[in-house]
Amino acid sequence: MQSFRELSENLSEAGYEFYRRGWVLGTSGNFSAKVSRKPLQICITASGNDKGALDETHFLEIDDNADVLQGFGKPSAETMLHLTFYRMRSNVGAILHTHSVWGTILSDIFYADGAIEIEGYEMLKGLSGVTTHEHKEILPIIENSQDYVALSHVIDNILRENPTIHGIFLRRHGLYTWGENIGEARRHIEIFEFLFEVLGRSLKLN
Amino acid sequence: MQSFRELSENLSEAGYEFYRRGWVLGTSGNFSAKVSRKPLQICITASGNDKGALDETHFLEIDDNADVLQGFGKPSAETMLHLTFYRMRSNVGAILHTHSVWGTILSDIFYADGAIEIEGYEMLKGLSGVTTHEHKEILPIIENSQDYVALSHVIDNILRENPTIHGIFLRRHGLYTWGENIGEARRHIEIFEFLFEVLGRSLKLN
Amino acid sequence: MQSFRELSENLSEAGYEFYRRGWVLGTSGNFSAKVSRKPLQICITASGNDKGALDETHFLEIDDNADVLQGFGKPSAETMLHLTFYRMRSNVGAILHTHSVWGTILSDIFYADGAIEIEGYEMLKGLSGVTTHEHKEILPIIENSQDYVALSHVIDNILRENPTIHGIFLRRHGLYTWGENIGEARRHIEIFEFLFEVLGRSLKLN
Amino acid sequence: MQSFRELSENLSEAGYEFYRRGWVLGTSGNFSAKVSRKPLQICITASGNDKGALDETHFLEIDDNADVLQGFGKPSAETMLHLTFYRMRSNVGAILHTHSVWGTILSDIFYADGAIEIEGYEMLKGLSGVTTHEHKEILPIIENSQDYVALSHVIDNILRENPTIHGIFLRRHGLYTWGENIGEARRHIEIFEFLFEVLGRSLKLN
Repeated sequence: MQSFRELSENLSEAGYEFYRRGWVLGTSGNFSAKVSRKPLQICITASGNDKGALDETHFLEIDDNADVLQGFGKPSAETMLHLTFYRMRSNVGAILHTHSVWGTILSDIFYADGAIEIEGYEMLKGLSGVTTHEHKEILPIIENSQDYVALSHVIDNILRENPTIHGIFLRRHGLYTWGENIGEARRHIEIFEFLFEVLGRSLKLN
Repeated sequence: MQSFRELSENLSEAGYEFYRRGWVLGTSGNFSAKVSRKPLQICITASGNDKGALDETHFLEIDDNADVLQGFGKPSAETMLHLTFYRMRSNVGAILHTHSVWGTILSDIFYADGAIEIEGYEMLKGLSGVTTHEHKEILPIIENSQDYVALSHVIDNILRENPTIHGIFLRRHGLYTWGENIGEARRHIEIFEFLFEVLGRSLKLN
Repeated sequence: MQSFRELSENLSEAGYEFYRRGWVLGTSGNFSAKVSRKPLQICITASGNDKGALDETHFLEIDDNADVLQGFGKPSAETMLHLTFYRMRSNVGAILHTHSVWGTILSDIFYADGAIEIEGYEMLKGLSGVTTHEHKEILPIIENSQDYVALSHVIDNILRENPTIHGIFLRRHGLYTWGENIGEARRHIEIFEFLFEVLGRSLKLN
Repeated sequence: MQSFRELSENLSEAGYEFYRRGWVLGTSGNFSAKVSRKPLQICITASGNDKGALDETHFLEIDDNADVLQGFGKPSAETMLHLTFYRMRSNVGAILHTHSVWGTILSDIFYADGAIEIEGYEMLKGLSGVTTHEHKEILPIIENSQDYVALSHVIDNILRENPTIHGIFLRRHGLYTWGENIGEARRHIEIFEFLFEVLGRSLKLN
């Protein structure tokens, strides 16, 4: 297990890179990583900071009830969603949530289909456990809401019904993805964003 | 209140980032922040400098008549517009004006409608006081002009009639947005620019 | 007058920034600045270097006959075009030549019209001597060729017939623009590139 | 000949730049350079590292059988393809393989034609041996596969039949290009990526 300090440093580096690429503009997005499994304790961005200039002081350590164990500031409203992912997937070590232009657009276009489906690209092999470009990735899209309790229940159900997915998209809001560690979660963000842009630009040509 | 020096440093950092993103190319754009409210004194970029390489020497301190209290160089012609915003909104602490590709394009497309209307995106919550994605943001578009006295009157009227807006767009020219402080104004620029790109790219797909 | 050393440093900085933006990829482009007017001596990039990593050793000082006065390497074949601009416009102090995606595309689309015409944008005021967005800028497009003597004659004629233009585009090749000094030429590149992107993206929407 | 250390440093610099541009996101891509010709020994990225943050420890030295001579980690599955290029083209000193959005899209659109054909652009002169924009570059597209032995045979055949090509594209996967040294291979990547974007964006406008 990595320490709170190391996790916050690695999440800050991811934030710097994602900000540069325009995936967490305007203080949007939030990131977390697991400090301990039993009891569940996580390191998570406090609400409302610039994700391109994070340091250790912008993170909170919280427990399973979202009570703050260390750090300054308020947990963001979406902390509840992070906790849901950790509870439902015991092998999740890190969760990254970003807001990108292409993701936002695709989540709207494919909302009626219930998911963004991506198939036939080599880049899919960057998703954990995927070994061939012939894989079809299903990325469920759920309606956005300010009721985070209700959203948690929806996410809970989707995770039960879809054991092999790598992410969930909140419509016109953003992507949640995860990994065994921060490196894997970050790779997943990059893979999804690359594929969103390919899909979005291809739509215009067809 | 922050000092002239601190404000010029924070505005320089915003300029560096906006230049990198292509929102103030070719010495375009101008930035200001309030040094004192009574009497009104502001720190503002002097005319004609590269906004990606600003330092304290590129800023002027001016009073309510645009007379220069400290610094070298000429106030830009748009200084009058900045003063209008500060006079009309007592809680404005900083004003940022940028020229972006997507903003320019949308200001042209939606000019006949009088405003760019944006609704249903989570990113709207990055605008001060907005608490749900269901918010509809109205961004008035006004015809561009080299007559800054006339423009000031138009802006004056728009601010009176639209107490809750977060920005105004000069057609085929650029965005004016503001905030209680530089951080908030900068967040507003990022939120608007993100949403302009989403809207512009979505138009192509529909 | 600035020294060869200072000019090469300022041109290197422009190159770094243009490379970052993708306007001089793959060692494309070339830059020059005037060292003395009588006799005409210029500082110009030697052939074939990475424009994102230039230093003084990548520049040559040449005279009006393109004979090398100092520096190592070969003048590029386009040196002749630079000399033509300096001869025809006595107030030109620097010339920048870049290869961008949007410029390349527009030069093809508008080739039959003979020029890219740009009108009604505030950003036009970034071009030297332009004081209103109502200005119409004419950017002549000429057919690309590997015969640089012939190209020089074509450029010579265009400069005679168009005393107020700020640049010339070689079809499917790149932009030549100039200024009284490197700062002004660099501002012109940024203004043209911004407007190319606005025009190109607007075409898709109309 | 450059040492393993120098080659790994130069390949790392290329990786940093390509990552920044979005051409090797999510640990995708791989790079190699020739350490000695007889016997054939190459320096190649180990499997699965972030290509934007490479250093010497992320490279392997391998022989003609893909046996590891020095370094830690596993050769990627695509090492076999690199070896095929070196065997078939004795003057190849470096091979770069990237995954870009525009390349991926074009490889799909032009797959039925068997190749991406590019003609009439000045930037083509950045490809080794090309001296005029009138050159027509043929970039063969081959179907992607996880069977690297079969892919090697296909590449072998294409290289025999097309002595003058500068690259091969694996459909919906990525570009392989090469050069006498790392600098030339890197220039080829930049030239191809520039032209992919020009072609892709032009398609939308026609």
